[in-house]
Amino acid sequence: MTDGNAHSMKNHSSSGIHESVDALPLPTQLITQERANPSFPVRELTYFMDGGKEVTRLKEMVMLQLERDPVMKTIDHSDLSLSQIRERTMQKVRRLAYYVANEPVRNFKMRMSVLTLVDPGTWTRVGVHFGLFFGALQGQATSEQLQFWVSKGAVTLNGLVGCFAMTELGHGSNVAGLETTATYDEASEEFIIHTPNLTATKWWIGGAAQTATHSVVFARLIVKGRDYGVKNFIVQLRDPTTFALFPGIVIGDIGAKMGRHGVDNGWIQFTHVRIPRSHMLMKHTKVKSNGQVIEPPLQQLTYGALISGRVTMVVDSGNISKKALTIALRYAAIRRQFGARPGVPETRLLDYVIHQHRLIPLLAQAFAMHFTGVEVQSIYDNLMVQMETLRPGDKNIPQILDHLKEVHGTSAGLKAFCTWSALNVIDQCRQSLGGHGYSAYAGLSSLYGDFAVQCTWEGDNTILTLQAGRYLIGCYREAKAGKKQAGGVAYLNELDSFLKIRCLAKNATEISMEMIGQAHWLVAANVIKAAGENFEASLKRGLKEDAAYEECSQARLYAAKIHSYGYLFHRFKDGVLKAPANLQPILTKLCLLYGLYNISENTGPFLQYEFFTSLQIEWVKARVSELCKEIRVDAIPLTDSFNYSDFIINSPLGKYNGDVYQAYFDIINAAHPPAKVPSYFQSEIYPLLHRKLESEDILELEDDE
Amino acid sequence: MTDGNAHSMKNHSSSGIHESVDALPLPTQLITQERANPSFPVRELTYFMDGGKEVTRLKEMVMLQLERDPVMKTIDHSDLSLSQIRERTMQKVRRLAYYVANEPVRNFKMRMSVLTLVDPGTWTRVGVHFGLFFGALQGQATSEQLQFWVSKGAVTLNGLVGCFAMTELGHGSNVAGLETTATYDEASEEFIIHTPNLTATKWWIGGAAQTATHSVVFARLIVKGRDYGVKNFIVQLRDPTTFALFPGIVIGDIGAKMGRHGVDNGWIQFTHVRIPRSHMLMKHTKVKSNGQVIEPPLQQLTYGALISGRVTMVVDSGNISKKALTIALRYAAIRRQFGARPGVPETRLLDYVIHQHRLIPLLAQAFAMHFTGVEVQSIYDNLMVQMETLRPGDKNIPQILDHLKEVHGTSAGLKAFCTWSALNVIDQCRQSLGGHGYSAYAGLSSLYGDFAVQCTWEGDNTILTLQAGRYLIGCYREAKAGKKQAGGVAYLNELDSFLKIRCLAKNATEISMEMIGQAHWLVAANVIKAAGENFEASLKRGLKEDAAYEECSQARLYAAKIHSYGYLFHRFKDGVLKAPANLQPILTKLCLLYGLYNISENTGPFLQYEFFTSLQIEWVKARVSELCKEIRVDAIPLTDSFNYSDFIINSPLGKYNGDVYQAYFDIINAAHPPAKVPSYFQSEIYPLLHRKLESEDILELEDDE
Repeated sequence: MTDGNAHSMKNHSSSGIHESVDALPLPTQLITQERANPSFPVRELTYFMDGGKEVTRLKEMVMLQLERDPVMKTIDHSDLSLSQIRERTMQKVRRLAYYVANEPVRNFKMRMSVLTLVDPGTWTRVGVHFGLFFGALQGQATSEQLQFWVSKGAVTLNGLVGCFAMTELGHGSNVAGLETTATYDEASEEFIIHTPNLTATKWWIGGAAQTATHSVVFARLIVKGRDYGVKNFIVQLRDPTTFALFPGIVIGDIGAKMGRHGVDNGWIQFTHVRIPRSHMLMKHTKVKSNGQVIEPPLQQLTYGALISGRVTMVVDSGNISKKALTIALRYAAIRRQFGARPGVPETRLLDYVIHQHRLIPLLAQAFAMHFTGVEVQSIYDNLMVQMETLRPGDKNIPQILDHLKEVHGTSAGLKAFCTWSALNVIDQCRQSLGGHGYSAYAGLSSLYGDFAVQCTWEGDNTILTLQAGRYLIGCYREAKAGKKQAGGVAYLNELDSFLKIRCLAKNATEISMEMIGQAHWLVAANVIKAAGENFEASLKRGLKEDAAYEECSQARLYAAKIHSYGYLFHRFKDGVLKAPANLQPILTKLCLLYGLYNISENTGPFLQYEFFTSLQIEWVKARVSELCKEIRVDAIPLTDSFNYSDFIINSPLGKYNGDVYQAYFDIINAAHPPAKVPSYFQSEIYPLLHRKLESEDILELEDDE
Repeated sequence: MTDGNAHSMKNHSSSGIHESVDALPLPTQLITQERANPSFPVRELTYFMDGGKEVTRLKEMVMLQLERDPVMKTIDHSDLSLSQIRERTMQKVRRLAYYVANEPVRNFKMRMSVLTLVDPGTWTRVGVHFGLFFGALQGQATSEQLQFWVSKGAVTLNGLVGCFAMTELGHGSNVAGLETTATYDEASEEFIIHTPNLTATKWWIGGAAQTATHSVVFARLIVKGRDYGVKNFIVQLRDPTTFALFPGIVIGDIGAKMGRHGVDNGWIQFTHVRIPRSHMLMKHTKVKSNGQVIEPPLQQLTYGALISGRVTMVVDSGNISKKALTIALRYAAIRRQFGARPGVPETRLLDYVIHQHRLIPLLAQAFAMHFTGVEVQSIYDNLMVQMETLRPGDKNIPQILDHLKEVHGTSAGLKAFCTWSALNVIDQCRQSLGGHGYSAYAGLSSLYGDFAVQCTWEGDNTILTLQAGRYLIGCYREAKAGKKQAGGVAYLNELDSFLKIRCLAKNATEISMEMIGQAHWLVAANVIKAAGENFEASLKRGLKEDAAYEECSQARLYAAKIHSYGYLFHRFKDGVLKAPANLQPILTKLCLLYGLYNISENTGPFLQYEFFTSLQIEWVKARVSELCKEIRVDAIPLTDSFNYSDFIINSPLGKYNGDVYQAYFDIINAAHPPAKVPSYFQSEIYPLLHRKLESEDILELEDDE
């Protein structure tokens, strides 16, 4: 017997199967060793990232309640059928309805932000009501209307559950192109909601198939034959006592999806359904009983609500990355594969140069997303406070609109960049587990399937990146025209002198945080300038603005991507400066690695715009390797600092105590007891194994007759 | 009502719901227009890629048989539970057992190669027997043993189905580290097969849980206390009349996976199970009855069999990419989103610059993989012929071993490069569908889940890429020492003069196929040289060979990746030269695009090694855009040339006739009839909606008492 892992087969009968145990440390001992000498105070890092000890305490309370509540179980999700998981999810929705009615908003928000990490299906099914349906009421209803729907149960889910019917079979990102109509009938003072054709069928509506009694419906407001564009209406879908659909409404289940199986996405067709005039949400546009339409003075302010989901997704991207990396790194600290030479224990994955390169830069990236999430959330919260207190005629409207434009453009690009990055992290982590990554119980395949939708919903990533690119071209042109740019695009001011900066480092260690920051700005400035010049050249050739933007799409996309790398690096760098002194060394290493890794993975523009020489690029690559090796010793303590309980990690391969193989075997054995004869043995297998071969039954003709 | 898609709602009752139809062409008309003027003869391209008209005819026969056979149905896979899909797959296995016993091998091979595109679960469940179990017999059994197992049903599956127990819970890629033992007992002339501990549990064994009666078992041969390394043994697992497990054998189901749900992967533990001596496969190593072990003279020749799976995966990568792209491109030709301006029909996705950039270079890549697959298959087939006729003592052994080494190194790198590329194509195609890509019925999420395992099994991609890098360093060092290199690495000869070549193009159109080829070689030569120098520097510092390879892992990985880009480009270029004249223009465009796209996505090394200037890089990018636009007009005819029937495409969004929305709606409606009240309404929803709020039940204490 060779150097096998030594733990015993406690899964079996105890009849002498315990084999001799050699000198290899147990997985649990290995992980304990990994935790023996962290270079930083682990708990302090948790507090710092959470935003304080009190937040950590609250999060831990929520994690403990989730973990102990049998209703909130997730471990058997992989083995449930679609209808089973739908039912289970509804049980969880009821549980959450209890909490929402009985705890402070802050606690419930924390509960949801923890839940999304382990059960995104349930999070979405609840989020559709609170985030979308109730969010639409908050953003679009008059205060009188809001009060009415709250009295009907919109806060407590007592009597009413809402869904959000925006997208249609033929229309997703382009809300302005929706086809459903809401035609005002003055005689009855009603709107007639109607689906004119197949592609106008409301599609992907979360909660529509099996949950909602009411819906916000996006439909074109038609009054006296005139189309006023898309507005929001409340339509009751079902009778809450029988769940029967109201006449004129048909709803079907959209069925199997790539992930989030607990969410009952549905399709809805309306056939001349009448609703009272008061069911149009009239905070902005109003329709009077006589059919007079009053449009709002400040159209742009309605965009604010869109941004909230994007900010949440930036934060989620960091958190999901931390979860995936916890699994991959803990497993890599245990798993042995190939040896230095025969007779010596196989090497652990995490000790291989290549495995360090696979995971440790992604760990640094998770921190970059974390600090970016914190910053973007805070910018957004400030903006919302400003906007809520705003009244028509206020002097600071132009200034706030500028700010809104910035947050809108920035959040579009970051939503795309971070969700794509996180999806990549999940997939890289899954692949780093080797074959076991393909097991549903390892947790990463469902994490991928569940997370993937974030790259598409609330704005397809490619379209959002193009929007961000358009915003950057706008900034570039404003800066050129002398209008000072602020925030994350301030580097576009005084472009010409800035573009001449070169890296002066004379050896690898001289490449500083400052230089890395400059490198990112210089390259971003160049690609934005190139996109801007491309755009302006098209205008000069006589193209209209939209056509000129279309022409430079590829350059816009590239500009937004490169800008985002730099944006994240600078948020990370700022975050490090705010950290307590005893956390600075480890965070500085991670931040350096993040910046240098960006460069090493995208050497093209850094060479093309001559910030670095070819020799300096080689130094950058060498520093990446060194930093991976340095951070490797802290890898497990860093996963601990994320402070996710085993319930949240939801993977035997990422178990805190390191006993990964036993936990994996136990889960699979519990789900599928061994030594079963398949139910279809008699009907399908026996006849295969015991058949008479067809060739024995052929009459052979004799040719020489 | 705005410019909606015009086709009617035939899904509904005919009671007047048909709306006015405006001037927009129907989806079916749109796709017909796309096919009106291909720049090349579509059917000719099909014949050329298939390898002749007769092959196309055979493929079409097989596709028709699959499509019409109710047993082979796949459309409802997304809605089957794990146990249902396992049973369905077994029905298909029986169907295939009929064919294998009644048709020529060539036809059955074609059947399997078509099946893998639409039902990889079934393909694997059958492939485990024929490719792995029977493959092991062919490669490892004496002719007497082979004959014995054939007489037991190993060809017809009549009486025997095999599985292949190689990997263990704690051991995947490193076969030499397996822990299961086969200890020879001279007294009884038996081997004792034993699982010494938990990590030695056979794991991921396809067919073990519910299909196989027998298994090839990889175990360490132990004779008289000496360990001879891992050999192959046949162990009977179950009684074919009852399917009961034999004593000492426990098998469990590994349960839910990321994909290929039809395959019953299992775990196996052996507890001192005795098998006759004749059940060790003794083509190479032999154990005599007295325990004498005779080892083979030509150990290396046993590697040949490993390569076959890799070659198949290179071919599959091209084919799966073609399938994914057919779906994405056909949908993109129909789907409208955003408009040039209000009142004008929304633009179709495929007419957007950015959508062309997303898909058309991947289309070119699919062709590159296609031609690479053809070439690698032919190299492999030739090698096998040489090896099969080889006898110990033959003069050409060193030459054949060199060839084997080349094919081994090349196929390792290509398996990894192509499966990663194809996985990326699938995901990019899925994302290009927007929200609908997230629907299981769109077909791309399951394609991803099913295909992902190819990046891991039969050699984890990262490990294979490192192997390829090691091979390349070896070639570099041989070439430096004056040993002429042949085949795909011939560019390493006369390196020093070669490295000084620069691109002399004076404008974008001057960048020729020849120059693109040189660019790839020059860059690959540089990165291989860098990796080789890195390796030699480590040797000079006193490191042993393995440690020196470990040190330069990142450089090896990079070298292999860059080499593969060039390898594919050159195979594509060679393929174009072999094409009929009327296919050359379109194939040349695709080949140019493939090469230029590689460069534009990896500008770093092309700038670093100074083949291109910064200005030339901008020309490359501009040419990519132009070629995308040029090829766009042929995009749909190119998908047609792949010649996959709707059954194989298995996605309403990729339907040949373009009626994508109706087909999508019909599939979902058939799977989930509308207007159903959820089964858990009374138990879960009613109580939520009609509950008394908890706050109403609290006794309020009066503080001022």
